Amino acid sequence: MAEPTADGGALGPRSTTVRRLRRLAGRRSARYDDRMLLVEGAVLVAEAVRAGWRLVDCVAEEHAPDVARLTAEYGVVPTPVTAAALAAIATTETPQPVVATFEMPTRVVPADGMLVVVDRMADPGNLGTIIRSAEAAGAAAVVVTPGTTDWSAPKVVRASAGAVFHVPVVEATLDELHEAQWRLIGTSSHRGESYRATVPGDRDAIVIGNEAHGLDEHAPIDVWVQIEHRGRSESLNAAMAATLLCFHWAGELPA
Amino acid sequence: MAEPTADGGALGPRSTTVRRLRRLAGRRSARYDDRMLLVEGAVLVAEAVRAGWRLVDCVAEEHAPDVARLTAEYGVVPTPVTAAALAAIATTETPQPVVATFEMPTRVVPADGMLVVVDRMADPGNLGTIIRSAEAAGAAAVVVTPGTTDWSAPKVVRASAGAVFHVPVVEATLDELHEAQWRLIGTSSHRGESYRATVPGDRDAIVIGNEAHGLDEHAPIDVWVQIEHRGRSESLNAAMAATLLCFHWAGELPA
Repeated sequence: MAEPTADGGALGPRSTTVRRLRRLAGRRSARYDDRMLLVEGAVLVAEAVRAGWRLVDCVAEEHAPDVARLTAEYGVVPTPVTAAALAAIATTETPQPVVATFEMPTRVVPADGMLVVVDRMADPGNLGTIIRSAEAAGAAAVVVTPGTTDWSAPKVVRASAGAVFHVPVVEATLDELHEAQWRLIGTSSHRGESYRATVPGDRDAIVIGNEAHGLDEHAPIDVWVQIEHRGRSESLNAAMAATLLCFHWAGELPA
Repeated sequence: MAEPTADGGALGPRSTTVRRLRRLAGRRSARYDDRMLLVEGAVLVAEAVRAGWRLVDCVAEEHAPDVARLTAEYGVVPTPVTAAALAAIATTETPQPVVATFEMPTRVVPADGMLVVVDRMADPGNLGTIIRSAEAAGAAAVVVTPGTTDWSAPKVVRASAGAVFHVPVVEATLDELHEAQWRLIGTSSHRGESYRATVPGDRDAIVIGNEAHGLDEHAPIDVWVQIEHRGRSESLNAAMAATLLCFHWAGELPA
């Protein structure tokens, strides 16, 4: 790379590469314009490479302990950057010593299997946790509806613990899924049958609504299910409800 | 209250009451010395009152919209404090307009039922989420071992969504539970039978280990269970694993 550098060959915060990474970290529009996402930390970078994602850029602090392993095991040779550059990119309080960008793969809704649909969810931590549970349960894809917090944001990638690299995340509306004849299973805190009583099918889409407002009454839901509580609390957190449903569905389906 | 006030009758950040609340918010030792915990926000304060917890102090910004309802529905009449006082107490970026302290009730391990045991867990958000799931699933108590993040911290209370007021949280060691002849069910990502194959008993203690290290190999576990994954991720988040197990146990037990 022929960029001017700040100290002894390491790129500083004003270099073109570092400024591009910073933009990808902070802006949804930058990620979608460039079809790229940012991954922080050696563990997650290794996970993305293992999952077959195409690496675009990788930068790291010189002599960071994780870098040698990334190079030896995955052939990744990061461009050295200064600590100030890493601090400029970081989306966490403590900057990670390795940051990379990957091409965002093109994804489509699969033909069958279990879908987990996240409808207008606001919290990135909840979305990431749901992606993690959906992947572990063997979902064919996670569908996010318009109005859901952006799945490519660093906080979602982090909360998913890298599951986002292993399960396709696609965008679609509930109406599109309904028209494509998926059976939409809606979760509610107050209506429908017990989720345990529902016999899973092979083209089911489990729909999780917004944390505060749940699903729209008029959503094109085929079957409403609820999770019975024994306690006195009002409801479960959306990520917990999603986990219970995914694993119920997964456990009832042939492997 | 005969304390000197900062402006028009409202207590300021240096008043004795506000300084006490601030200490309870930030220090575990203060909470245990005084056997009190701090609850932030009208919704959680109402939940604690509804659960029968004994209110000690309540302070609020004057004319805060939630205060009238707290007074009308629960008979709580807060002491007015300044915005600066609330900011001094707050454990969140945006201070809540109502804060209260409650007596920490004395709790013992119940004689039977389902226990959820949290062993050396580090993250307050995870602990709060597990308390929420345990309560919703009907656990008789949540047991925290020494080394687990303090359950009385504001972040745990918040993450529990008030469930902490409805299920007893008690401290004990795994050895004490073992000696009291609870059946200890240990969760592992790599050993034991499927949790779905385990027949729940009426004195079972589901043990969840530390997020990063899991349970100690030498812990006095009677039955190891694992959650089978279909995905390629390494494991579930500890709170999601706890949720699946609690609800499996609850669903298999007579109501």
